[in-house]
Amino acid sequence: MNRKASVVWRGNLRDGAGTLSTESGLLRDAPYSFRTQFGKDGDGTNLEELIAAALGGSFSMTLSDELERSGLHPEQIETAVIAKMEESKGSWTLARIEIEVRAKVPNATQNYFIDAALAAKTNSPMARLLNTSISMIGHLDA
Amino acid sequence: MNRKASVVWRGNLRDGAGTLSTESGLLRDAPYSFRTQFGKDGDGTNLEELIAAALGGSFSMTLSDELERSGLHPEQIETAVIAKMEESKGSWTLARIEIEVRAKVPNATQNYFIDAALAAKTNSPMARLLNTSISMIGHLDA
Repeated sequence: MNRKASVVWRGNLRDGAGTLSTESGLLRDAPYSFRTQFGKDGDGTNLEELIAAALGGSFSMTLSDELERSGLHPEQIETAVIAKMEESKGSWTLARIEIEVRAKVPNATQNYFIDAALAAKTNSPMARLLNTSISMIGHLDA
Repeated sequence: MNRKASVVWRGNLRDGAGTLSTESGLLRDAPYSFRTQFGKDGDGTNLEELIAAALGGSFSMTLSDELERSGLHPEQIETAVIAKMEESKGSWTLARIEIEVRAKVPNATQNYFIDAALAAKTNSPMARLLNTSISMIGHLDA
């Protein structure tokens, strides 16, 4: 099974620009550039937010599975993922990732929920793929 | 500097469904589910194609920078990224990634281009972030 993306970049690093596309059509020639990549927060598309979305998606699915295996039925799992960028030697790199999850899970205890969320943080396919430190905060709504 | 994404998942793993959003608005409640995640190629959004797009974007920018540092002016860099999924113990995981790059770079030699592309494959921020094997094929257009 293959998952595909394609990128076109024109020009040099600082003045050039590119587009991102994925096979499913989720991204269709989405523009990105040095400015959007390294500009201030919210200034346009950047590659780290795609990583954050993939990790959040994988974590959330894995958590729903962890809960279900114990006979629980998660109603809603809301996950925020923050990729923390730090400057080192003049370039920005993804230093670490923070996950904050809030969930409604009837009949779950706080302790059990946190254990399931920690398991998802460690075992979700995207968490295993990423070579960076990931922390997590979990809230179980009443 | 923070890069953010948010995910909402409702229900269990196989029958539930979720949405993916990123701070820039590139993704806005993009739907994903077990079916789109593990369905056949082209059957909907999946998390691995986001990883492939992030890697392709990072590789392409890094390659343009590698070329420029040697006084070359890349006109166009086209990068295809394939995340190869393999089944193991009943679940699909990202086994490896293949990059195929084709570029127009006036005055570049084939050897020099391949060296620059290999450097980008190893050194691009997303390549360093991903804990998987990455191979590359490069073509320099005349």
